[in-house]
Amino acid sequence: MASKVGVGVLGAANIANKNIRAIGLTDSAEVVAVGSREVARAAALLDRWGLSGSATAYGTYEEVLADARVGAVYITLPSALHIPWVLAAAAAGKHILLEKPVAISNAELDAMLAVCREAGVQLMDGTMWSHNPRAARMATALHDKEVMGELKDVTATFCFNAGPEFLGGDVRVQRALDPQGCLGDVGWYCVRSMLWAFDWAPPLSVTAHTGAVYNGEGVPMHMGATLLFPGGRRGHFESGFDSALTQQVTVHGTLGTLQLCDFVVPRAELRCAFTLTHHHRLEDHETWDATERDEVVVRLPKPQESVMWDTFSGLVRRIQAGGEADAFWPRATELTQRVLFAVEQSAREGCREVALSW
Amino acid sequence: MASKVGVGVLGAANIANKNIRAIGLTDSAEVVAVGSREVARAAALLDRWGLSGSATAYGTYEEVLADARVGAVYITLPSALHIPWVLAAAAAGKHILLEKPVAISNAELDAMLAVCREAGVQLMDGTMWSHNPRAARMATALHDKEVMGELKDVTATFCFNAGPEFLGGDVRVQRALDPQGCLGDVGWYCVRSMLWAFDWAPPLSVTAHTGAVYNGEGVPMHMGATLLFPGGRRGHFESGFDSALTQQVTVHGTLGTLQLCDFVVPRAELRCAFTLTHHHRLEDHETWDATERDEVVVRLPKPQESVMWDTFSGLVRRIQAGGEADAFWPRATELTQRVLFAVEQSAREGCREVALSW
Repeated sequence: MASKVGVGVLGAANIANKNIRAIGLTDSAEVVAVGSREVARAAALLDRWGLSGSATAYGTYEEVLADARVGAVYITLPSALHIPWVLAAAAAGKHILLEKPVAISNAELDAMLAVCREAGVQLMDGTMWSHNPRAARMATALHDKEVMGELKDVTATFCFNAGPEFLGGDVRVQRALDPQGCLGDVGWYCVRSMLWAFDWAPPLSVTAHTGAVYNGEGVPMHMGATLLFPGGRRGHFESGFDSALTQQVTVHGTLGTLQLCDFVVPRAELRCAFTLTHHHRLEDHETWDATERDEVVVRLPKPQESVMWDTFSGLVRRIQAGGEADAFWPRATELTQRVLFAVEQSAREGCREVALSW
Repeated sequence: MASKVGVGVLGAANIANKNIRAIGLTDSAEVVAVGSREVARAAALLDRWGLSGSATAYGTYEEVLADARVGAVYITLPSALHIPWVLAAAAAGKHILLEKPVAISNAELDAMLAVCREAGVQLMDGTMWSHNPRAARMATALHDKEVMGELKDVTATFCFNAGPEFLGGDVRVQRALDPQGCLGDVGWYCVRSMLWAFDWAPPLSVTAHTGAVYNGEGVPMHMGATLLFPGGRRGHFESGFDSALTQQVTVHGTLGTLQLCDFVVPRAELRCAFTLTHHHRLEDHETWDATERDEVVVRLPKPQESVMWDTFSGLVRRIQAGGEADAFWPRATELTQRVLFAVEQSAREGCREVALSW
């Protein structure tokens, strides 16, 4: 059996807990180091997950990169701090699982993609739901023309009520740390859902919706947009920190509709569902909606984050065995991030339609 | 017991079947006449509903208006043909239940509203779902700040796959008959849902979404928009004849979300439901979405269209007893129709934001 990929965690953000736990549920990876500017935080994190004996707490990120057991890094830092550590990790030959949003400008994004490509290291962003077996099951349904017909629209909403503590100080409300705010946080998943549903065809244009809300630092607290895709397909989304938790995606086809109400964080960890409606019709004007609705249930052997780490570790081991880095995941990252920058540009330029070239 | 309001139906459109049946299920109204340019169609309609003995088939609309038993008319004609018959009905002192969209220009709308007001006749549009007891039950939930918090967004989608026969010749694809196409047909209900949810506060602006689709005659086949309401509230909708049946409304509050998937034509005629989610939270980053979801079921004694006719007949009888016409329903009609004109204007003017003054 192949040895596990050693993971070094950069940053002790809350999201690190979720993924340290998830890594522990895999046979493919193991946490061997955590780095935090406060070494005590790194140590506490390892202690919490029973890893104090097997992994090392460091007070700098450099030390994590210098640890020979570290084959890959998991970067949980705020997005404004990504670029130096992506560059340093790639230079050190470490593969990278990078939290989203990945960059704060297209120039940074370009640099990250180039350096990882040149260094031959795997880059993947932390979009966990992409790896949930439910996503594969949904993709099968979306491609079934007898069920869905031709796909037309994706509508996605991801909002949560962030509350005063979050709005007062979370990294996602600070221009210096995560300047894309709700757009980079929850909007990321909405845009990803469209790219995924439409088989990664890049959108032709992006137009922000009116009604965007910014905080005092100019960071988006609510933002939405319409995306136009090739073939007349459309995507519509709303992202925000300003209303009750909603994480819904609906894919509209000419014959069927696919919907799920927990697309990013499933309501139950090991039992996911989505709804497929078909044979859509209004019976006639005298009677009623005779649409058939099927709930499709997908059971998981482990959390979606663990599946993500299995996938990532598999790619890492392939490279370690002499293969090349996978190009699909960096492309998914690139498309998602570029679209988000275009949405924000449109919002800041009076909701004008921003054409994209790829 | 008060005598029933005698209803004269103008036009033998398919929707007439639904409402003739619904009127027959009330104790408040009865169909006494149907007028069609083809008298045989009017006679067939009466025959179908067992009314040949009690109601009269006419070959002109004038004859319906001249029938002394007719206290109110139900106008099912295409919207481009509304104006002369609304004016004639009002002049004849007949109360009017008018199918939507009600007018093809703001000037026509103004004229209709003025003439009905001056004649003292009741005007109400045929937005049946507004009268469903479910709507009242939902309004109670929307106003419950402990459940919903502050309302923020309404998202509405009403699409259906019209199919080649409809797209080839239905009145709703013909510029000369229903020039607002899908916007006037299914978009009407979306806009109404926002106005209703936000307590009839008129929107400040309307901005069409990119991606509108028109047929060869320039009639909208798909159109959506974002509406900005006072207090930072937003509405987003998509309407279309181009994808599988979806009739969904979601109201987002800071603490809760209300959703229904059959807002216009309920899936079952006498048992309606909606979903109320609250205590929204992501438990923490280790676990999952712990949102509570309650299905609220509302049972109806009769179809929502029958409830609409009961309401309308009650208003008519109040006027017949010396009261004044109710101003609420014409205002709801006016708001809905003006917003739709603004959406279409925005779409035709490059999706610019159209400011509205009221």
